Amino acid sequence: MLTVQEALLTLQKFWTDRGCMTVQPFNTEVGAGTMNPATILRVLGPEPWRVAYVEPSVRPDDSRYGENPNRLQTHTQFQVILKPDPGNPQELYLESLEAIGIDIHAHDVRFVEDNWAQPAIGAWGLGWEVWLDGMEVTQFTYFQQVGGQNLDPVSVELTYGIERIMMAQQGVTHFKDMQYAPGITYGEAFGQQEYEMSRYYLDDADVEANQDLFEHYTAEAQRMVDARLPVPAHTYVLKSSHAFNVLDSRGAISTTERAKAFSTMRRLSREVAKLWVERREELDFPLLKAEGAKVLVGAAVMPPNPEPEPVDAAALPTDPQDFALEIGVEELPPHVVDQTIEHVRTSLTERLAQTRLTHGDIRVVGTPRRIVATIAQVAPKEPDAQTLRKGPKVAAAYDADGNLTKAAQGFARGQKVNPADLVRAEFDGAEHVAVRIDQVGRGALEVLGAVTHDLVAGLRSDKNMRWRDPQLSFSRPIRWLVALWGSAVVPVEVSELRSGRQTYVHRTDAVPLVDVATAGELMGVLEAHGLVLDPAIRREQVVAAAQELAASVGGTVDLAAESELVDEITNLVEAPRGIIGAFDDRYLKVPEQILTTVMRKHQRYLPVRDAVGRLMARFITMANGDCDDELVRLGNESVLRARYDDAAFFYDADLQVPVDTLREQIGKLTFEHRIGSMADRSDRIADVASSLTSSVDLSADEQATLKRAGELAKFDLAAKMVVELSSLAGVMAKEYAARAGETPQVAAALLEMEAPRSAGDPLPESKPGALLALADRFDLLAAMFALGAKPTGSSDPYALRRAALGAVSILRGLPSLAGVTVDAGLAAAAARLRGQGVEVSDESVSAARDFVEGRFAQQLRDENVSADLVSAVQPLAAAPGKAERALKDIESARGDGDFAPLVEAVQRITRIVPAGTDAAYDTSRLTEPAELALAGQVDSLPDHANDGLPEWFADARGLVQPLTAFFDDVLVMAQDPAVRAARLGLVQTVVARAPQGIDWRALNVALG
Amino acid sequence: MLTVQEALLTLQKFWTDRGCMTVQPFNTEVGAGTMNPATILRVLGPEPWRVAYVEPSVRPDDSRYGENPNRLQTHTQFQVILKPDPGNPQELYLESLEAIGIDIHAHDVRFVEDNWAQPAIGAWGLGWEVWLDGMEVTQFTYFQQVGGQNLDPVSVELTYGIERIMMAQQGVTHFKDMQYAPGITYGEAFGQQEYEMSRYYLDDADVEANQDLFEHYTAEAQRMVDARLPVPAHTYVLKSSHAFNVLDSRGAISTTERAKAFSTMRRLSREVAKLWVERREELDFPLLKAEGAKVLVGAAVMPPNPEPEPVDAAALPTDPQDFALEIGVEELPPHVVDQTIEHVRTSLTERLAQTRLTHGDIRVVGTPRRIVATIAQVAPKEPDAQTLRKGPKVAAAYDADGNLTKAAQGFARGQKVNPADLVRAEFDGAEHVAVRIDQVGRGALEVLGAVTHDLVAGLRSDKNMRWRDPQLSFSRPIRWLVALWGSAVVPVEVSELRSGRQTYVHRTDAVPLVDVATAGELMGVLEAHGLVLDPAIRREQVVAAAQELAASVGGTVDLAAESELVDEITNLVEAPRGIIGAFDDRYLKVPEQILTTVMRKHQRYLPVRDAVGRLMARFITMANGDCDDELVRLGNESVLRARYDDAAFFYDADLQVPVDTLREQIGKLTFEHRIGSMADRSDRIADVASSLTSSVDLSADEQATLKRAGELAKFDLAAKMVVELSSLAGVMAKEYAARAGETPQVAAALLEMEAPRSAGDPLPESKPGALLALADRFDLLAAMFALGAKPTGSSDPYALRRAALGAVSILRGLPSLAGVTVDAGLAAAAARLRGQGVEVSDESVSAARDFVEGRFAQQLRDENVSADLVSAVQPLAAAPGKAERALKDIESARGDGDFAPLVEAVQRITRIVPAGTDAAYDTSRLTEPAELALAGQVDSLPDHANDGLPEWFADARGLVQPLTAFFDDVLVMAQDPAVRAARLGLVQTVVARAPQGIDWRALNVALG
Repeated sequence: MLTVQEALLTLQKFWTDRGCMTVQPFNTEVGAGTMNPATILRVLGPEPWRVAYVEPSVRPDDSRYGENPNRLQTHTQFQVILKPDPGNPQELYLESLEAIGIDIHAHDVRFVEDNWAQPAIGAWGLGWEVWLDGMEVTQFTYFQQVGGQNLDPVSVELTYGIERIMMAQQGVTHFKDMQYAPGITYGEAFGQQEYEMSRYYLDDADVEANQDLFEHYTAEAQRMVDARLPVPAHTYVLKSSHAFNVLDSRGAISTTERAKAFSTMRRLSREVAKLWVERREELDFPLLKAEGAKVLVGAAVMPPNPEPEPVDAAALPTDPQDFALEIGVEELPPHVVDQTIEHVRTSLTERLAQTRLTHGDIRVVGTPRRIVATIAQVAPKEPDAQTLRKGPKVAAAYDADGNLTKAAQGFARGQKVNPADLVRAEFDGAEHVAVRIDQVGRGALEVLGAVTHDLVAGLRSDKNMRWRDPQLSFSRPIRWLVALWGSAVVPVEVSELRSGRQTYVHRTDAVPLVDVATAGELMGVLEAHGLVLDPAIRREQVVAAAQELAASVGGTVDLAAESELVDEITNLVEAPRGIIGAFDDRYLKVPEQILTTVMRKHQRYLPVRDAVGRLMARFITMANGDCDDELVRLGNESVLRARYDDAAFFYDADLQVPVDTLREQIGKLTFEHRIGSMADRSDRIADVASSLTSSVDLSADEQATLKRAGELAKFDLAAKMVVELSSLAGVMAKEYAARAGETPQVAAALLEMEAPRSAGDPLPESKPGALLALADRFDLLAAMFALGAKPTGSSDPYALRRAALGAVSILRGLPSLAGVTVDAGLAAAAARLRGQGVEVSDESVSAARDFVEGRFAQQLRDENVSADLVSAVQPLAAAPGKAERALKDIESARGDGDFAPLVEAVQRITRIVPAGTDAAYDTSRLTEPAELALAGQVDSLPDHANDGLPEWFADARGLVQPLTAFFDDVLVMAQDPAVRAARLGLVQTVVARAPQGIDWRALNVALG
Repeated sequence: MLTVQEALLTLQKFWTDRGCMTVQPFNTEVGAGTMNPATILRVLGPEPWRVAYVEPSVRPDDSRYGENPNRLQTHTQFQVILKPDPGNPQELYLESLEAIGIDIHAHDVRFVEDNWAQPAIGAWGLGWEVWLDGMEVTQFTYFQQVGGQNLDPVSVELTYGIERIMMAQQGVTHFKDMQYAPGITYGEAFGQQEYEMSRYYLDDADVEANQDLFEHYTAEAQRMVDARLPVPAHTYVLKSSHAFNVLDSRGAISTTERAKAFSTMRRLSREVAKLWVERREELDFPLLKAEGAKVLVGAAVMPPNPEPEPVDAAALPTDPQDFALEIGVEELPPHVVDQTIEHVRTSLTERLAQTRLTHGDIRVVGTPRRIVATIAQVAPKEPDAQTLRKGPKVAAAYDADGNLTKAAQGFARGQKVNPADLVRAEFDGAEHVAVRIDQVGRGALEVLGAVTHDLVAGLRSDKNMRWRDPQLSFSRPIRWLVALWGSAVVPVEVSELRSGRQTYVHRTDAVPLVDVATAGELMGVLEAHGLVLDPAIRREQVVAAAQELAASVGGTVDLAAESELVDEITNLVEAPRGIIGAFDDRYLKVPEQILTTVMRKHQRYLPVRDAVGRLMARFITMANGDCDDELVRLGNESVLRARYDDAAFFYDADLQVPVDTLREQIGKLTFEHRIGSMADRSDRIADVASSLTSSVDLSADEQATLKRAGELAKFDLAAKMVVELSSLAGVMAKEYAARAGETPQVAAALLEMEAPRSAGDPLPESKPGALLALADRFDLLAAMFALGAKPTGSSDPYALRRAALGAVSILRGLPSLAGVTVDAGLAAAAARLRGQGVEVSDESVSAARDFVEGRFAQQLRDENVSADLVSAVQPLAAAPGKAERALKDIESARGDGDFAPLVEAVQRITRIVPAGTDAAYDTSRLTEPAELALAGQVDSLPDHANDGLPEWFADARGLVQPLTAFFDDVLVMAQDPAVRAARLGLVQTVVARAPQGIDWRALNVALG
């Protein structure tokens, strides 16, 4: 077994043997190997580069005094950059694992979608987490953009997490126990440093000093950018980033400071990147000429393109043959597998339809690593055909004498036909002269080749990337093509990719490259190697394996609940191999939501439940193909143990702290320095929620709940579990409050106040929870608008859009809160902020209201509410609860035949009645039967101004007929002013007794 | 041939295979691998440690924009720490060279004394520069102290200079041309970084920002010390050191700032070191228990101690045998070789004289690696002997009856002899009873063993060190002992060292370990292996080889001039092998002093001259033993070329710049911020020198020279050559001035003004040069005392002692300047400083004067001037020129018999004459013959008050007899006041006409 240092030296040797330079770790603190100029700068521009190095990566936030078994303030990355993509980076990577003693045949190695993005440096790429028995051991990324610059060529980045790999390899459960060197453990070598630097980062770093350092560093970086020196500029960007991280781990970064710092660092990173490329260009891109670099550019591509097979046309079969196509890719994201199967099916069908080649059924299946299409009985060639080529109109083709005009002669000449061969034919209803063109049918190879070419060249996903290929772009690199018609290879060249008959089976297969004799055998060959091509069958196997394994321990898997996860798992593997693992019962005391979240989201494990649905201390994972079950099980168990250890540690630690103490501790969390700490915010939320109760009916119990929950609002932000996993904010509040003896209602309200987290999320159920949730959002909106931090097109650092949508959703979703308006909420929040000494201008409150109303309208549009309806309820935008009711009412009223005429009449009234007309009329002035009839009806119409639409409609539907008659028979605008006034007053009364807040004019009566 | 990165990986492999850990370079900028905590902290305390790592070492000062072929702002060190000393670090090191492809049999590898000290971190050690064909490739040090802490165990530090080694290995002359990785040169990999970081360090770093950074870093370091966290504290010490270095390379560090910064960093380093040890102790020194560490402690010692040979006493020869002793050491410094040979010779002689073992001639010779002693014909044993043990005095031994007293009986009983056996014997002149004790003679092995033990245990040099041995201490480690008497091993165990018959010949010998059969063969065996043991013979060989090689190119070596160098070379090798090399003629245009300085001081090369004494483009080096002459010559040539390239580059560049421009440029060099730039200082020096001319006769030419030289004073501090090699300040001024067409006098004065640089250095010859030299020193003294920066016991950062001694030496050495006094010089300097706005208190001037006078007195004492003389000229201390003359005069007068009586008389007069007595007398009051006779003589004595002593003595010697008679016959203190006054006046006249400024009372008349 290798020691840690042997592993590092072995990896250096491995990669330098494969053409990499090695460099030293950077000599200022970096958060990741990516930040070493050997990566971040060298991936820019056209020059080739291959480098492999160790990088101790400093993450002050991960400081744990050396106590956490898996987390270190400095962990060791091994970083590899291959630029350009050599074509076979996954294969090279797997070899490197073998070099450090990892038996990839025994372990379960998987490439699990992970799309890397670091907005702080304007960088992103697509790739994977590489899993070794469920543990993320490497980040594998095709860099697409860095410093805002598109990368060409694309670089492959491999980042090995050395501690994780070596802990697993050495079978130890605490990083300190690894053998670092012969006879020296990791703890002995680095334990004291880990403790002391943790102390510095968490407890002892001077905040003011580090703030000053940050300012100096960014200023120096800017000066160096201005001096056109990207290397020192980058160094200072790194230093500023580290100072920022130190401040952050000391809890000294407020939200605005964070936003400001990120914006500064992002800008500097972009300028450095741009400058680097410019400088390299000024230097004439030296590495384009370097001897070794030239070698790199031409580095062998694996899989190598197959040699083209000569086509002996004469020997080709003359009867229909099956066609088989395999598009070999690097692991696609699960959802892309299904999309691509669909796309290929559709595309093949349509493209073939545009040819004259006859064929049988088209079948398309696929796995993460290949899409396979078969078409039965494809004819050996298209039939020949004729088409007509259009010439001049007949009228222009012959003169009065019936002789060909010059135009027609010219056409015949141009088409190289005898004028006598011109025929007449109708084109778009007009008669033209034309020539007959014979179309010789193309052979199957040609047609299929063209179709395949276009299909592959046109493959796209929702997120696409570039790799070494100069033209192609897809979700992940396309690495090989098998295309066979019968036993013949269908020759296709798509950019650098050439078709052949070689397919790649599972990477750990004894012979991973297999020849396929005929199209008909392709699927069979692949299946014979254990690959389950059809996702439906794969899914069945996953389900069957899971149920069988669960049953083996007396449990079940709740397939309905886990349906999405099963779908994902199905497309994470080519050959599902279920393995059941266990974890220590003692973790079951940790709230289930934590345990299952870890299983599902982090590990893609299926939870196992007992007969009554209780979580069992088991999990099921699906390995990809043959492996050593026992080894893989142990590996997965140890990953889960590490995660649960963390969770249990935090959970236990948190339970030791009274909730009121945690609530006090959030006073130390800066929210925004101008508006105080999290505790201040919590206070404000409680007060604003309380002031909103004036519009809501609350029972005494609900009032008590609101009071107590308000006192505790957001207390769990100080809990270790939430610090660690911020997505559990609210969840842990509920849990800890309940455990601390708070009422179930208080506990629930503390969770509910965080809802909804995103569109579609459940809303708060209780009134206290909903009021707190609203208060939270109104406080945030009022505060941030007051500070001038409103969202811009691309930037919304405080997630104010989400806050506004959340408030609107709650108000729409909870009828009991319909009395609460946006105005009232923002006004209460503003008043409370002013009470705290924050300056809140009326303009800012009004801008916040406009913003919320704007989001509401957008939300409605996103829900496909028709534009007229959105406009119709616009007057109620500040009272989304009422608007929601009006919407629903209108939509349901539209089903009634009376509604449209009634609305039309109302619209007519609003059009003709001058503004300011009273809803009153002198009955004595009314004389015409139609107006008297209407007045009779109106007299008995109750005033529904403050009622809902259904109540009004029930009464007002009787007006439809009288109103129609009135408008037919009566001239409203009578000469006699008194008569006119009476008539206007009469119809105005109709409108005035209708529910207020609906813009009747906006409604499209054509819709009912 | 290895690439650079292969060499680094190979070294890591080599050392990790030998039990070293490897760690990563430190992630903040360090100036050397030593500063990585893996060295600087881990060498402290008792825990074992073995580590090997790469360290890119940042030296902002060495920034050259990547243009200099050998100098980089970041160079790569490979650092090894072996703690404890494994016993064979040199052998391990040589193996490591072989591992990276260096054929140590073909190359000339030497260990050249180099004593490492870094006062800034309170650290020092003894060791070597390792030379590969004349190039320093490694620093090899036994650390003795770090952070002010004594180290126990001692660590061995190896610091490989990777760029140098690899440039030599790859045979390239510019670092950029090295193959760093296959197909990638060093320049391609790091050239841009080298350029840009040079730009930052030399031109673009913001001074204020870096000053702030320095302050923040030291403050954080101090806070971390206070928090008892040595690791973060050390990190911040490193950061502050780097910030300091950046400021320094920007020329922004004044002398006071430097002193202050160093003092801060030194203090912090010491506190960190102390704290580290305390913290490790609190942790119970974990590595004392670590499994691997235990292995390290017990690591095999090489050379292994020989197995003890059983001594069969019966078989030992009974006739005299030769004795041979070899003390095997690691390379001693040259001067220690001679010292130790002497010491061993004396010690053996004296120690054997204290035994009764007879022996013949003692011969001791030696090389840097061994001291060999032979003693002819050592008897097989000491003869038996008798001694007497003293009892009570006879008087107390017998009572009145002649019977033994109780005391005597008790004595006999105590000695276990029969009372009858008591004898009488005289001790110190008194008769005692006594017993006879028989002493059996010891055998030769026992005697020689004891003598050898004590000799080896007592070996000391002027600078001693510790190594792995728990008790021994010497100039360098003692590694083996050969001790033979005839064919028998003389058994000796000195601490961990055991004697045997195995000797180590040249390390590159095919069989480096050789058995020696008999004492008589030892020298022959060594000589047969090419080792020249006798320094005298070795010197002859060096001389002969040098002359022969020089003659082969038609030149000679000036042996008289190079005598000291030849001595040194003789003790740098065991087997001198002369090699002559050449350098390009074009370097001969560079001033000879530069070329020969480089040859002698840096390379220990003998310069070769032609028939008329002109330097030839040749040099001679002495390799140590067999090697590939051609390879070694090429290597040495390339080292010299690199050094000369540098020199020529600077020289040429400087010549392009007019001297007046250079003089302007020193305005940018801060001297001390409160007293301005170097240009300000130069201005002051010129003015002060000019004001001193009032006491000195200057010709018109001399005045012109002084004026012009004053205008240019210190201009060469802006010259690149001087920036590079500060020891050439003055030398280059002369050179550049002459080349620029200044008069030879001006040029000479510019050099002379820097003299003397140290005690014993030549003084300025010309008056203008001397006046500038004085002005320089007076300005420095006046300024620094005014700023309160006077030297303390241990600290003299401005070298004020040297300045004071220099001024005194000049005044003493140049009679033409005797009129210049310290008072006048300091007063002129003070006035000039005040004119510039500097506050100079009278007290500070007076303190400066006292300081100079104190140094003068000390200088005299150091010259062994007798205390009475020092006191006698004390009144002239402020006029050292006059004092010097008085001293010389007194010393020469002391040879004259009349001088002592004359002085005695003067002393007598000064004792009896009351203060204030006029030197006048009324002759009419004199009556006694003796007084009349004296008066007669005195009347004719000229007044020599302002003359020299010789003139006075010539006239005053006639007074000796009359004065004697006067004091014999006359009572000076007569009753009659008038008589008394006349007599007192008479003798006072004698004193008054003697030269002033000599304190006659202080002279010791017994000395003549």
